[in-house]
Amino acid sequence: MPEIKVLTKILEANETIARENRKIFNKKKISVINLMSGPGAGKTTLLEKTIKELKDKIKIGVIEGDISTSMDAERIKRFNTEVVQINTESIGGECHIDANMIKNVLPQLNLDKIELLIIENVGNLVCPAEFNVGEDKKVMILSVTEGDDKPLKYPLMFHVCQLLLINKIDLLPFCDFDLDNLKKNALRINPQLEIIKISAKTGEGLEQWNNWLINLWKKYK
Amino acid sequence: MPEIKVLTKILEANETIARENRKIFNKKKISVINLMSGPGAGKTTLLEKTIKELKDKIKIGVIEGDISTSMDAERIKRFNTEVVQINTESIGGECHIDANMIKNVLPQLNLDKIELLIIENVGNLVCPAEFNVGEDKKVMILSVTEGDDKPLKYPLMFHVCQLLLINKIDLLPFCDFDLDNLKKNALRINPQLEIIKISAKTGEGLEQWNNWLINLWKKYK
Repeated sequence: MPEIKVLTKILEANETIARENRKIFNKKKISVINLMSGPGAGKTTLLEKTIKELKDKIKIGVIEGDISTSMDAERIKRFNTEVVQINTESIGGECHIDANMIKNVLPQLNLDKIELLIIENVGNLVCPAEFNVGEDKKVMILSVTEGDDKPLKYPLMFHVCQLLLINKIDLLPFCDFDLDNLKKNALRINPQLEIIKISAKTGEGLEQWNNWLINLWKKYK
Repeated sequence: MPEIKVLTKILEANETIARENRKIFNKKKISVINLMSGPGAGKTTLLEKTIKELKDKIKIGVIEGDISTSMDAERIKRFNTEVVQINTESIGGECHIDANMIKNVLPQLNLDKIELLIIENVGNLVCPAEFNVGEDKKVMILSVTEGDDKPLKYPLMFHVCQLLLINKIDLLPFCDFDLDNLKKNALRINPQLEIIKISAKTGEGLEQWNNWLINLWKKYK
């Protein structure tokens, strides 16, 4: 099928640029997270809490990906964090961040002021999983309101990530969400997947997530 | 940019096939809904409730779109409904349903037994909005757990839909979701957008939604 051939070419070109990004990150000793989820799973809220907690210990930078608006970047800027916004609307309404978009915005960040770079991807459980951007780790958020069947329905996302954050656990009493079933389904797809339960709202589980980030950051220390 | 050119060509080809589908639906007097949302907003649960309520009045058929699994089609089959599953995994992991996929599965449905065809799209607020499939109406679901900023972040989806279902309103007391702000943002993008608040779980608002469907179905009666 021609569409698949086009996709293969796009992904090959993406890999080449991802490797170039990786070289830059290695040289600058920056640990990089590609943070992915469906719409409204709580990426930006988690980022705010994370920056607030870790900013005196780790120099954090953020690349915000969105189709439209710079609302998320504005939210992050309040913490005096190095941040840049990618709007995919101007480049065809892309539903994901790719390596070239990252390459293009890196000059807008002062990389000497960043030890940990968090890339907040477009809210989408499908295509972002296909595009490496030169990151160290891929992290996904699933909120309990989305249902425990999601690993089966979006297998690639669960397959490519190293860490799954199960967010909004404060809403567990009000949702038909079977945590054991979710874990079983996720680990069947990716037996190496780490799982941390959190509530970005109440703060539950965030210490474990922060420690996970600190361990990653220590790689270059 | 070459990627945008490719996209334009794909969308043009899609329009041609969507028009062919439309001709078939007109000929068979079938009203068609393209139902879209992010992952886990409650499309299938709503469909189950809708079929249960309307199946003695309207002959309903369903096309289930998913990347992987036939879990949703199995859920719908329990109601003895005409249903067919599209798995986009086998066609490049597409993050949306396009007109050609619909065209290809129509022969698997007994169209003489269908008056209202509901197409459940892949859970994604981005790309499904770009692909017409020959439908009468585009309907989107946003759950209150996803946040009231979504119209600004996914404007095309709100722009192309005729009806917005705000789902999971039973969770409103536990979410930071400003209903007025959501409506204001959604109507700014699409002043013609109809809005119905529902809880597929508790049944609140479903009568209004069912009546909306009945009105659409009456077109051919």
